[in-house]
Amino acid sequence: MSNKVEESSITIDSGIVECYYHFSVERIKAHYPNERLIFITDENVYKSHAEIFPVGDTIIFPAGEENKNLETVGRVIDELHEIDAGRNDRIIGVGGGVVTDLSGFVASIYLRGLKFSFAPTSVLAMVDAAIGGKNGVDSGQIKNQIGVIRQPDALFFDFTLLRSLPSEEWVSGFGEIIKHACIKDAEMFHYLENHRLEDLGNNPGAFARLVQKNVNIKLNVVAQDELETNARRILNFGHTLAHAIETLNKLPHGLAVSVGIVFACKVSERLTGFDPKKTEKIVDLLQQYHLPVSAGFDKEAAWNLVSFDKKKSGDSIYFVVLEDIGKGVIKKISLENLKDLFFEI
Amino acid sequence: MSNKVEESSITIDSGIVECYYHFSVERIKAHYPNERLIFITDENVYKSHAEIFPVGDTIIFPAGEENKNLETVGRVIDELHEIDAGRNDRIIGVGGGVVTDLSGFVASIYLRGLKFSFAPTSVLAMVDAAIGGKNGVDSGQIKNQIGVIRQPDALFFDFTLLRSLPSEEWVSGFGEIIKHACIKDAEMFHYLENHRLEDLGNNPGAFARLVQKNVNIKLNVVAQDELETNARRILNFGHTLAHAIETLNKLPHGLAVSVGIVFACKVSERLTGFDPKKTEKIVDLLQQYHLPVSAGFDKEAAWNLVSFDKKKSGDSIYFVVLEDIGKGVIKKISLENLKDLFFEI
Repeated sequence: MSNKVEESSITIDSGIVECYYHFSVERIKAHYPNERLIFITDENVYKSHAEIFPVGDTIIFPAGEENKNLETVGRVIDELHEIDAGRNDRIIGVGGGVVTDLSGFVASIYLRGLKFSFAPTSVLAMVDAAIGGKNGVDSGQIKNQIGVIRQPDALFFDFTLLRSLPSEEWVSGFGEIIKHACIKDAEMFHYLENHRLEDLGNNPGAFARLVQKNVNIKLNVVAQDELETNARRILNFGHTLAHAIETLNKLPHGLAVSVGIVFACKVSERLTGFDPKKTEKIVDLLQQYHLPVSAGFDKEAAWNLVSFDKKKSGDSIYFVVLEDIGKGVIKKISLENLKDLFFEI
Repeated sequence: MSNKVEESSITIDSGIVECYYHFSVERIKAHYPNERLIFITDENVYKSHAEIFPVGDTIIFPAGEENKNLETVGRVIDELHEIDAGRNDRIIGVGGGVVTDLSGFVASIYLRGLKFSFAPTSVLAMVDAAIGGKNGVDSGQIKNQIGVIRQPDALFFDFTLLRSLPSEEWVSGFGEIIKHACIKDAEMFHYLENHRLEDLGNNPGAFARLVQKNVNIKLNVVAQDELETNARRILNFGHTLAHAIETLNKLPHGLAVSVGIVFACKVSERLTGFDPKKTEKIVDLLQQYHLPVSAGFDKEAAWNLVSFDKKKSGDSIYFVVLEDIGKGVIKKISLENLKDLFFEI
């Protein structure tokens, strides 16, 4: 089926982010007729979709979170230098979250910053990773420890690329979609309850509308607080624990978020009196989308990672809880208090 | 002699930069009573001034431009992680241009940005490198190819640290001071003509006033155009050639700038009708401050570096020329035209 391109844009402190839905990667070149475009992607995306990349101006790096580090950044920059990339050229990051994180960071620091745009190719990147301008890489065990916040000029959503996405990655993307529903959109929560992943995956029109809704939820939060001094923290719902078990158990991000959401619901029950029946509804929805709701992990090791977590401030931590489905709130709680809950729940 | 602390501040798009003159590094701790400070310096500065650094929270990296690269950035970040540096801690870069460039970059990308301030310890860093927020590192042969623009919150000028500065570094600093005089301040040019480096070096009061003047010249230009889309390019006077011969001949920065200034004066004669007698006055002043006014270098290799220079845009280059002493202007000239002048002069 063919879908008309739909456009929208949002103004953020640092500039305007344009969104183009049903926009094929091959059309990006025509969208920037007067610019030299340099595509950055990883080996997996390139293997699946070699035909969408121009010859010569495509830089390919090894796939996987384990390559999202300063060493890969250095190698991509060497390649930019080799192909004589200049200050007026534009980077197009095409791939999942690792590609958009790394290519956005490279674009932010090469020659002190080139223009850049993204074409996310996974569900997770479409609804979360490619949005909001947090670009960066990992350092040792700590995810995203190195980076900057800088918005892409445009996001191009080419849903046809999802056809080759493994089913586990579909599931992972729904971890973030359900997170958005929990903190901001009770209506979307009910919509998800009434659908199945398999149906949405086979209905590009419905899926595109769902992505659009998620992009708008995230962009609206980011527009309120680009640098995460306050309101943006809401997006960390489920992430405090998720980052730790993602590292320890090598769980895909969305699956770790799912486990983290269940933990955060239980913390919500203690802190806001969140109804345990609603926790059950959330657990049911996560399972309906094939997401894990618990995981065996080393609690001591996880706590060490949680307490290093970069969102900590002094002896307390910002932790997102629910007051209701569709209504997340940010609480500052002491590390000690969180530690007690952590080992109790 | 003791001097009272003098303060000034300037507002730039991204924030306010405060300047404190006659401010000892040991006092910085008391200036930020409620913050954890982490000092970053290099081995040379640490060897000369170990007593000014607090034990525990000082990170020391190997000195020299050859270590200003992503690898050192990675190592400093590992050390920040080891000492558990958090999002609310402040980096204090204490050193010459390599230290302020690298520590400012680290501060800009670690945990997506910590607060940072500088205490420049060389003449060059005091009048140029520490000012303006261009933080970054080199990649291969290309200087400052990787970086961001982000302003320090404060600059602390501790002139007592200059006592141990080698005389070559004093000379190098005057390369940038004379550059400022050439493009912006005929009065300072005449002042410099009437003084000698040795006198200024032995007169902390007079030297401090000279530094202050240079800081204000540079900060005022930066405040007009922080991201160097236009007016800020004026500061590149003498630098197009300087960057190339600095790399090829391993010449200290200010000395390379001096040679570049003479080249730019000769280009000015062709492009603006700049009076050759004024070129002679500039040559005389540079020599009075023991700066080189010519250098033997591989012209082909230098041209290759010039034409890669990151200030290029399309087939033309922004090149700064003088209309008069104290009046620099930015010209866009074709690479071809510059190439002809380059091999002719």
